[in-house]
Amino acid sequence: MDAAKSSRPQLKIRRVNLDTGRENVVVISSRSKALRAEVFRGFSRVELRAGSKVMLATLLLTDDGLVGGDEIGLAEPAFRRFAEPAGGLVTVSPAARPASLDAVRAKIQGHSFKASEISAIIDDVTHYRYSDMEIAAFLVGSASFMTSGELLALAHAMAQAGTQLQWDRPVVVDKHCIGGIPGNRTSMIVVPIVAAHGLTIPKTSSRAITSPAGTADTMEVLARVDLSVDEMKQVVTTCHGCLVWGGHVNLSPADDILIAVERPLSLDTREQMVASIMSKKIAAGSTHLLIDLPVGPSSKLTTALDAMRLRKLFEFVGDHFGIAVEVIMTDGRQPIGNGIGPVLEAQDVMAVLRNEPDAPQDLREKSLRLAAHLLDYDPELRGGTGYARARELLDSGAALKQMHKIIDAQGPSGCRTDLGTFTADIKAPRDGIVEAIDCLCINRLARSAGAPIDKGAGIKLFKKIGDRVTQGEPLYRIYAFDESQYDLAVGAATADSGYVVGSRDADGGEAGL
Amino acid sequence: MDAAKSSRPQLKIRRVNLDTGRENVVVISSRSKALRAEVFRGFSRVELRAGSKVMLATLLLTDDGLVGGDEIGLAEPAFRRFAEPAGGLVTVSPAARPASLDAVRAKIQGHSFKASEISAIIDDVTHYRYSDMEIAAFLVGSASFMTSGELLALAHAMAQAGTQLQWDRPVVVDKHCIGGIPGNRTSMIVVPIVAAHGLTIPKTSSRAITSPAGTADTMEVLARVDLSVDEMKQVVTTCHGCLVWGGHVNLSPADDILIAVERPLSLDTREQMVASIMSKKIAAGSTHLLIDLPVGPSSKLTTALDAMRLRKLFEFVGDHFGIAVEVIMTDGRQPIGNGIGPVLEAQDVMAVLRNEPDAPQDLREKSLRLAAHLLDYDPELRGGTGYARARELLDSGAALKQMHKIIDAQGPSGCRTDLGTFTADIKAPRDGIVEAIDCLCINRLARSAGAPIDKGAGIKLFKKIGDRVTQGEPLYRIYAFDESQYDLAVGAATADSGYVVGSRDADGGEAGL
Repeated sequence: MDAAKSSRPQLKIRRVNLDTGRENVVVISSRSKALRAEVFRGFSRVELRAGSKVMLATLLLTDDGLVGGDEIGLAEPAFRRFAEPAGGLVTVSPAARPASLDAVRAKIQGHSFKASEISAIIDDVTHYRYSDMEIAAFLVGSASFMTSGELLALAHAMAQAGTQLQWDRPVVVDKHCIGGIPGNRTSMIVVPIVAAHGLTIPKTSSRAITSPAGTADTMEVLARVDLSVDEMKQVVTTCHGCLVWGGHVNLSPADDILIAVERPLSLDTREQMVASIMSKKIAAGSTHLLIDLPVGPSSKLTTALDAMRLRKLFEFVGDHFGIAVEVIMTDGRQPIGNGIGPVLEAQDVMAVLRNEPDAPQDLREKSLRLAAHLLDYDPELRGGTGYARARELLDSGAALKQMHKIIDAQGPSGCRTDLGTFTADIKAPRDGIVEAIDCLCINRLARSAGAPIDKGAGIKLFKKIGDRVTQGEPLYRIYAFDESQYDLAVGAATADSGYVVGSRDADGGEAGL
Repeated sequence: MDAAKSSRPQLKIRRVNLDTGRENVVVISSRSKALRAEVFRGFSRVELRAGSKVMLATLLLTDDGLVGGDEIGLAEPAFRRFAEPAGGLVTVSPAARPASLDAVRAKIQGHSFKASEISAIIDDVTHYRYSDMEIAAFLVGSASFMTSGELLALAHAMAQAGTQLQWDRPVVVDKHCIGGIPGNRTSMIVVPIVAAHGLTIPKTSSRAITSPAGTADTMEVLARVDLSVDEMKQVVTTCHGCLVWGGHVNLSPADDILIAVERPLSLDTREQMVASIMSKKIAAGSTHLLIDLPVGPSSKLTTALDAMRLRKLFEFVGDHFGIAVEVIMTDGRQPIGNGIGPVLEAQDVMAVLRNEPDAPQDLREKSLRLAAHLLDYDPELRGGTGYARARELLDSGAALKQMHKIIDAQGPSGCRTDLGTFTADIKAPRDGIVEAIDCLCINRLARSAGAPIDKGAGIKLFKKIGDRVTQGEPLYRIYAFDESQYDLAVGAATADSGYVVGSRDADGGEAGL
């Protein structure tokens, strides 16, 4: 077979300027004499070989122009991953299905995965041997049930697949929020407090995929976040903590690939979420981990029961891997802080660190509470004094000083920090009290205004739940740079502001409408 | 929102010569000022609007060349489906997920589909509103369990989605084999026998997707098969029967789309198979249907129990839709006939119809048996005389005459009918008796030799199970046109011929080895 395969004529690599997202895609001419394109119609996957290098890719055909008859076009990112020069020779043959897909098929039919099967799947996913369709089959097939053994194997395999950090310290703390709450940039306050105390907190964060900002997007307003592993280690050595983008550090790379398929399919099973988060924490070398689960009607978790089931899963996986996990439920009924969008959120964070009188108190209080839990992991600290110590570090300016130190160590990002020039105030429709704020709606509005691509786009809230408003008083302000996005966001906010203003009297009784 | 949307600048349609299979794919420039490509990175699906036309598509980005900043490139088949001229203007916005995906998500979480949800899903699939990934989610989500109500709703929705044929006759018969057995071109003998008798049998067949030939591929050696609905009706009026390709007639178009995703994922659940087949028969207006289930170790069904479970599902759906379904189990231990590949199979078929002495007897007998069942549906015929009548029509040459009539009515296909010029004989490794033939292996070999793309490529079997062979005697001959495919097929056959030659003596006892 091998001899027969090598009798196939080789094709010349051509770089094709087509960004296909994650998936490896190659293009051949339907007139390719070397390859007989029509034979490949029945297959959608091909295998490229150059020396010992092998890559699987999805095949597209073209009639002319894009590639010649003796060429194969490699779209971005296939070209980047294959890392062979344009003009280099490559053998192309129909790809055999990755063997691990047999396990996926069995899982769909009701079997459970063995740990070795999950390892093989994650290895194939990490090396881009699965098409998006095959990844979807794995995720959907695992979504209806996942045993606790499968969950542990998945977290382990994902953690093993990328960079694994090691810290020469007995206590390495970390925090994680499952997200969904606009604003809520506690990490950027917690990290400087904890680092100022001297505990090690090497924080990696994600960028927004469907939300208006991730912590990495917001931190980037203040400093560079795309640090390499070595640069990150250097910052942590100097400052005890960092606030960097996890994508560049390559912790649990399979997770990024799986999430990119889960999102468009709106898959979010508890087990996959726990495996995803815990794989990154295992790989990051954390010893103590605090998990923040916001609960609220428009939050990811709507009931305390849901939160408890999730808590148990985190604890189970943490115990297995020797990580001390603490899970707390927090108020997820409304945004935390006032700003939504990178620049506006960075302003909130700095106002809290600077102890400005109009700094958002909810963001300050939540950050202190989380920092207190982390500080209590310090064996040197007397039990129960974490909160007082956190407040001392914040009020004294020590946390602010530490934040500046971290910013200096990470270096400048050079990104724009001005606010959107198109602004509109969305106003209260009547006198009354703010009864509810829809987190999903506010996220959607801030995103349609341009966040996180436009750092200075987003929403600034003037009112929170319980605030009394008069008719016509601004509830929040929309900021945008792009006129058509401004139109979209204002149009959407006019149709649904995300606020419920009730005309309850101060005692909570209904007073009409 | 609508007003805001229309403020978006329009883009000019450009035809991009890129065959993306089924999926709608569009390309925009990452420098597109009108569209702000980076905003779309979080979305992979966009919505195109021109007047009242709406199309969903998957988005790719390019840096230059392929499309200009004021253009949107429509790959084949998106360009064909949108059916707007190049240069025409179109509005592009992030696409909302099809609402029916909520039901898919619920199904994944363990809920069952309502009939209305399945209708909505099939409508969205038929109109190319689902990405391949979303189709995979639907199929995998349905694969672990499907209620009988879901099965009926799926068959119904799929039948409703395309052409629905009506015949002004009380009895319209059809036959279907679930496939997997090389050779086995019984339809091309059954149809002329049944039509010669005067029963109506409007047979539509598929082309091969992963096998070396479908009935449509083999019939195409003798006649045109890509008839329109009207042409097909005309042939049936003239000849009582036809042998055409179902793809052009557009029966159950959703099925073709679903199958194209099932195949690469190797999904083949009983319920999806039954819904797929029955949807086409309902749409085709069949009143009486014979289902052929081959059972054998390398067949799709390996045990009688599997076959019985499948039989019950066919009967259940048939009863519900008022189709008289009869399901028979047949010998699926080895290929039927001698030829595998379109030209070789067509030669077998014509040899049987011409009553040539060396015509394959297994193909003749199986065809007679199937035709007998169908003829017994004729109320005019005395019970139990179907087989005698079938043999009479075949032996007398009436069936051959009817086949020529059908071929004339469908017209010439103009395709090549010569056999591959590269040939190799695969020989018996020892004296003995053929004990087994691996259907999957033989299919794979014929396909790698070039079938069905090269009509004259394939395999001609000289020996069947039970035949005595001497060492070095040819078991079968490989035909190919393309040298590299010839090399591949011969290499693979040398490694594994697909034949088991045992040295049992004639009494069935083991005689060494």
